[in-house]
Amino acid sequence: MLNQPRRHRQTQPGDWVQLTAVRGHRFFFVRLTPGERLHTHKGIVEHDALIGLPWGSRITTHLGVPFYVLPPSLSDILRETKRRTQILFPKDIGYILLRLSVGPGTHIIEAGTGSGALTTALAHAVGEHGRVYSYERRAEMQALAKANLALWGLEARVTFHLHDIAQGFFEHDVDALFLDVPTPEAYIPQVRNALRPGGFFGALVPTTNQVSRLVAALEAHGFAFVEVAEILLRFYKPVPERLRPTDRMVAHTGYLIFGRPVLEPPSPPQEDA
Amino acid sequence: MLNQPRRHRQTQPGDWVQLTAVRGHRFFFVRLTPGERLHTHKGIVEHDALIGLPWGSRITTHLGVPFYVLPPSLSDILRETKRRTQILFPKDIGYILLRLSVGPGTHIIEAGTGSGALTTALAHAVGEHGRVYSYERRAEMQALAKANLALWGLEARVTFHLHDIAQGFFEHDVDALFLDVPTPEAYIPQVRNALRPGGFFGALVPTTNQVSRLVAALEAHGFAFVEVAEILLRFYKPVPERLRPTDRMVAHTGYLIFGRPVLEPPSPPQEDA
Amino acid sequence: MLNQPRRHRQTQPGDWVQLTAVRGHRFFFVRLTPGERLHTHKGIVEHDALIGLPWGSRITTHLGVPFYVLPPSLSDILRETKRRTQILFPKDIGYILLRLSVGPGTHIIEAGTGSGALTTALAHAVGEHGRVYSYERRAEMQALAKANLALWGLEARVTFHLHDIAQGFFEHDVDALFLDVPTPEAYIPQVRNALRPGGFFGALVPTTNQVSRLVAALEAHGFAFVEVAEILLRFYKPVPERLRPTDRMVAHTGYLIFGRPVLEPPSPPQEDA
Amino acid sequence: MLNQPRRHRQTQPGDWVQLTAVRGHRFFFVRLTPGERLHTHKGIVEHDALIGLPWGSRITTHLGVPFYVLPPSLSDILRETKRRTQILFPKDIGYILLRLSVGPGTHIIEAGTGSGALTTALAHAVGEHGRVYSYERRAEMQALAKANLALWGLEARVTFHLHDIAQGFFEHDVDALFLDVPTPEAYIPQVRNALRPGGFFGALVPTTNQVSRLVAALEAHGFAFVEVAEILLRFYKPVPERLRPTDRMVAHTGYLIFGRPVLEPPSPPQEDA
Repeated sequence: MLNQPRRHRQTQPGDWVQLTAVRGHRFFFVRLTPGERLHTHKGIVEHDALIGLPWGSRITTHLGVPFYVLPPSLSDILRETKRRTQILFPKDIGYILLRLSVGPGTHIIEAGTGSGALTTALAHAVGEHGRVYSYERRAEMQALAKANLALWGLEARVTFHLHDIAQGFFEHDVDALFLDVPTPEAYIPQVRNALRPGGFFGALVPTTNQVSRLVAALEAHGFAFVEVAEILLRFYKPVPERLRPTDRMVAHTGYLIFGRPVLEPPSPPQEDA
Repeated sequence: MLNQPRRHRQTQPGDWVQLTAVRGHRFFFVRLTPGERLHTHKGIVEHDALIGLPWGSRITTHLGVPFYVLPPSLSDILRETKRRTQILFPKDIGYILLRLSVGPGTHIIEAGTGSGALTTALAHAVGEHGRVYSYERRAEMQALAKANLALWGLEARVTFHLHDIAQGFFEHDVDALFLDVPTPEAYIPQVRNALRPGGFFGALVPTTNQVSRLVAALEAHGFAFVEVAEILLRFYKPVPERLRPTDRMVAHTGYLIFGRPVLEPPSPPQEDA
Repeated sequence: MLNQPRRHRQTQPGDWVQLTAVRGHRFFFVRLTPGERLHTHKGIVEHDALIGLPWGSRITTHLGVPFYVLPPSLSDILRETKRRTQILFPKDIGYILLRLSVGPGTHIIEAGTGSGALTTALAHAVGEHGRVYSYERRAEMQALAKANLALWGLEARVTFHLHDIAQGFFEHDVDALFLDVPTPEAYIPQVRNALRPGGFFGALVPTTNQVSRLVAALEAHGFAFVEVAEILLRFYKPVPERLRPTDRMVAHTGYLIFGRPVLEPPSPPQEDA
Repeated sequence: MLNQPRRHRQTQPGDWVQLTAVRGHRFFFVRLTPGERLHTHKGIVEHDALIGLPWGSRITTHLGVPFYVLPPSLSDILRETKRRTQILFPKDIGYILLRLSVGPGTHIIEAGTGSGALTTALAHAVGEHGRVYSYERRAEMQALAKANLALWGLEARVTFHLHDIAQGFFEHDVDALFLDVPTPEAYIPQVRNALRPGGFFGALVPTTNQVSRLVAALEAHGFAFVEVAEILLRFYKPVPERLRPTDRMVAHTGYLIFGRPVLEPPSPPQEDA
């Protein structure tokens, strides 16, 4: 499982292992079980051949395709999580976790669950004593997310709700709340009801029109320290003698909005403030 | 303390509280203790006046300056941590935590400690069962970082070493290792010796020349999946009717380099790969 | 004058010269006239001392401050032009000229004139056989722009109108038209009336709300090939051994919108088109 | 031809016309000649059917594909110019023209010619009284560029040299010089010999290593005001109610380096200057 790194030099039965292709970053995620067998389109691997290996070893499938035997990587898992229309990228997730002060013990609500990419990162970060409450209206998306979380061994930390958040959240006084839904501005009263005063609110929306509407709603409902940002991630070709950015990049995933509900909000911010 | 959110509706003795100015984001960080008094250049606040308040309340100092009573924010703390020459910003720290799969239980080395900004974020993320080993050569910087970590109540999770990493690290088989030093390429054999095979390596350097040297060193010492990236964070003025980016932004903090030590590395990547 | 580079190796009476400080890029722009004298806050320079010098020479004022004797630079002039609230930067101007196909012989309208930065670049580009029609409502801004254009020797190519464009433009069938006004969406019928069908329209607005309104107006009035873009210019410290971006940059000047009026417009673009 | 906009309301024999597809931006460029016929993969168009039309009209090919009848667009032409390996984009070309103060009457050298994209923009900008000297070593590239320039009607303004610039340039005292070659740092003495003192030098290189080498060469050969920059162009989906950046963008074309040869250069710049 992601959150239980083992520090033996060799892999052992029960270890969660990420087999990553030497070329192309494609990977498989398995829990080592004597006698089992992993079937992939790149060939078959016997679990027994993976047990007792030094971490970082290179193995090949029965078709001769080489893979590394690695501890699981959270960012690889996030990239792999089957994408929905509105994608949360690692670049955004890392900043969201930080801005919402998510850490061991945090109780956090998210909506919607989607395919579970953010859910995975949250479950990883809150640890065994924290809790993730994840809301979704589409049963098939929830099923997909549950399967993903189970695959990474993190399902026990998540409470999944199949529920329309327009009806409100079931929890109260959570530490943080994140909305990844098309009309976050429509649920701000519900958010205030679920999020502890002084807690951390965040949302991601893809268009500038949505940003304007959400910022207005936050101001109307007593949120202070409202912040709007976007994160651009630029990769370089890692060639020492010809270092340069890659030719193309992801130009936009969404705008991030943050704020904190307070009891007596400040008067609306001035443009020049 | 950052990692122990309390879910009472009112503040209690022993709670860690962040007093944040209603205007300007300036804040003070205190542990509520009956009878104590906080002295700031914005005025004095009696702890007793802060105990028993609903979270999110607005109070004023004896000079009439208004503050909110809030749960501590990790990103505010990181912004506040006294800066050294080479700055790690929240935008970079969030991505580093994710790429290195840092979470509850992780054992991680960092060098140098500097003023302790990354140390704080790491100590927050690894929880009570994880461990941060932080190396620094300058005694005065280490003292500053120790004071910062103590201020946030996170010092028990960190082992501080006053040590030149050219002599090697004291730990072995840690899960992850991050270098924020001027010549990271000089310490890659030491890194390999301390980091478990398959573990997570990361570094930040400000210049392209350093990137080239570090990537070459990683390739020479058996690191796979070497990645070079930079993160740009762009803020918007949160005014619904006149939404626009701020006029100026931080254009550069540093380049981030990641890689994973493996036992049989691939042949060097081709430029077109 | 900007558009009449002389190819003598030595400066001559009547030459336009840019004196640029060796340190700090501050410059003065003079037309060499025997017997005249340039007074600056960095000291006095006799024109006679500048005549007959090789281009690129280094001279000093009577206070000992060193300057280079250079052919005038359009981009330096644009940076220097006294700024109004809504600034057109060289990065935007270069792209505007290209996208509007401005070159020798072009007839172009701009509104508003402002301090004349874009006017200068347009007058430079259209040459002696082209024409710039520049509209402004504020007499004092027009006076400033006229003074600037006269300083650069380009005033003969510009027709200045002190006029509210809500009343329409005086010209018809111009090749291109650029709006740098707060509510460009309000003048699109007037634009259609002045711009030849198939001609080039452009505008710059600072906020996303203005972009939405202008794009809607262009679609409503038969413009094809509508394009919205922004240009980010990032500078590097030119130090070969420590190459890196500057720490801070201009994050936003405005959004650029382009389109071409056609006789039978396409049906409105689909979002996925 | 690009530089001779005609201001008749209807197209006439001899006019240069750009037929642009209503959907998809594909275009054809023709000089209207009675009796001629344009063959395209979207169908056939008789020139006679194009003569006497209002500019901006919509016509269809014999296959029913709709096109607009437009004045030629420089930026469309630049995008269309058959690309070589190292691409100059409109975003870079616009800034280059401005930084090099290229306008009517300018004499400028470029190397290498490549497919002629920059050559086209330069020939457009310098007008009938300016001159472009374009160097290339590969005969087939030069042939392609000549064909492109002839297509746009601009070939008379360009002198093409099939020549290795390591042997020096044939011209002296040109106003500006631009290098788009793999090792610009190797030709700086030749550049100094061809470019007037105080003139404008520019170059584009794709890697940071090349930037370092070129900046060092410029400093070693007496160039002042050395500047390194890159331009990022970000497009938005032009949908008023859902305004947002496109999902992906060109992340890198190259770094732009500028400088001016002077007679007594300043001492090398300090990093903190």
